[in-house]
Amino acid sequence: MDETFGVRLRERIRALGPLCVGVDPSRELLESWDRGDTVEGMEFFARAALEAVVGTAAAIKPQVAFFERFGSEGYRVLEQLISDARDADVLVVADAKRGDFAVTNAGYAEAWLAERSPLRVDAVTASPYLGVDALAPLFTLAQENGRGVFVLVATSNPEGRVLQRARTPEGERVEDLVLRSVAELNNRNDGLGSFGVVIGATRDAPEFDLAHLGGPYLVPGVGAQGASAEDVARLFTRCPKNTVLVNVARSILNVGPERAALRDAARRWRDDLNQALA
Amino acid sequence: MDETFGVRLRERIRALGPLCVGVDPSRELLESWDRGDTVEGMEFFARAALEAVVGTAAAIKPQVAFFERFGSEGYRVLEQLISDARDADVLVVADAKRGDFAVTNAGYAEAWLAERSPLRVDAVTASPYLGVDALAPLFTLAQENGRGVFVLVATSNPEGRVLQRARTPEGERVEDLVLRSVAELNNRNDGLGSFGVVIGATRDAPEFDLAHLGGPYLVPGVGAQGASAEDVARLFTRCPKNTVLVNVARSILNVGPERAALRDAARRWRDDLNQALA
Repeated sequence: MDETFGVRLRERIRALGPLCVGVDPSRELLESWDRGDTVEGMEFFARAALEAVVGTAAAIKPQVAFFERFGSEGYRVLEQLISDARDADVLVVADAKRGDFAVTNAGYAEAWLAERSPLRVDAVTASPYLGVDALAPLFTLAQENGRGVFVLVATSNPEGRVLQRARTPEGERVEDLVLRSVAELNNRNDGLGSFGVVIGATRDAPEFDLAHLGGPYLVPGVGAQGASAEDVARLFTRCPKNTVLVNVARSILNVGPERAALRDAARRWRDDLNQALA
Repeated sequence: MDETFGVRLRERIRALGPLCVGVDPSRELLESWDRGDTVEGMEFFARAALEAVVGTAAAIKPQVAFFERFGSEGYRVLEQLISDARDADVLVVADAKRGDFAVTNAGYAEAWLAERSPLRVDAVTASPYLGVDALAPLFTLAQENGRGVFVLVATSNPEGRVLQRARTPEGERVEDLVLRSVAELNNRNDGLGSFGVVIGATRDAPEFDLAHLGGPYLVPGVGAQGASAEDVARLFTRCPKNTVLVNVARSILNVGPERAALRDAARRWRDDLNQALA
């Protein structure tokens, strides 16, 4: 692709607003939709969620864990969702949180970012426990193919804070080390880079200045997890316009399978986020 | 199952030795086997690797990243390998390095540790970047079903060290925090627990005494990555007998598809490891 993921995402947010809808077919959610916790129930759920957000959400974020519950059959549903979203011109961020050492990350890069893969998406989330540098194969293939990577920095759940705020011998927090490393990757290139970070809206600002990332932000924690549109606005107040992608999942999908109700819920969140981040 | 994973693994190591063979169908390895970097090439590779190690290895460790390269079709090959290994009485540790917040980890637990899943394995590897406590759904389902979890502590690659050795405000290194947390889970139960850790054979001993883990150790980094059987013996010198599972992948699979050669390579590693760890 000619355009980078960073540029495509910014254009999409400019046109539609910052809403990303999490497609999370958990057992609880499928049961509450009353279609059965089965592959068929999941297919129905994925199709309904996508249809309800076309033209409203900049992106969807399927949570790979919930598809993986059904093994290869669940992955087939995920492949179909990804392909349907591509046809409907909705960006897809696969929430896979993959991360291994470099030789193995080459495998994950092929899975999520290679043109030949049935799982190829616009961007994938990655976990830096084995080091940001070990994620290099993901960065390289993303760059080559106009795709992106969002690296976990400061997650929305409380259990991660002790680790993410531990300090290196140089006195830098882990979350700041990851942020700085991703910023360095972006700043080797001109314009908006394609390497983003995941920062929970429930978190305080890191010590590293978020405005210097040079790439997009993926922000969970809004809605069912407790943060509001205003919390997001506060955290990213000085960041470049149209670079913040805000994920909302349960607060929209909890309304159940009725299409009009789903569409209304998505639109309300889009409007709230647009207003708060304007 | 009546027995815990910890007990089953110890019995298996006592009977066969500590060798775990990594089944890593990377592009490079499949191409070197000359069967094509395709789903069919991968099926051939997985079957040959398993057949070559039955009766020699205590376990196999399929690297999920390489199966994921082919999406749902790759997962179908992985499901078949897992099922064939079960039939051949070889333990399976899925190297997936999954990790998310707790609600999502419930999905990963269903995928890898639930009785109904086609991907169910004896144990799965997990990544603690979002906190060891967030992995609770994996620990709970493992305990219920006689399965296990290996949590990443100190990985064999150099890029992860800065993060893994960062210190919390209490002065504890991240790697020691993870070790201590897993030890606490094991020590709530009698006997050998089912919650293990991943520690690269290329690493120095952590500050937390490895002998106090109360569960098994999964040790990569041997062979192609540079560590020897003797390095493993030194690192785990005071740990309980038959609790160390040593992964060897490329140094065995690099010999190519010839069954007798594969079997010989596996046996040489088993004998080396048995001697060093005796």
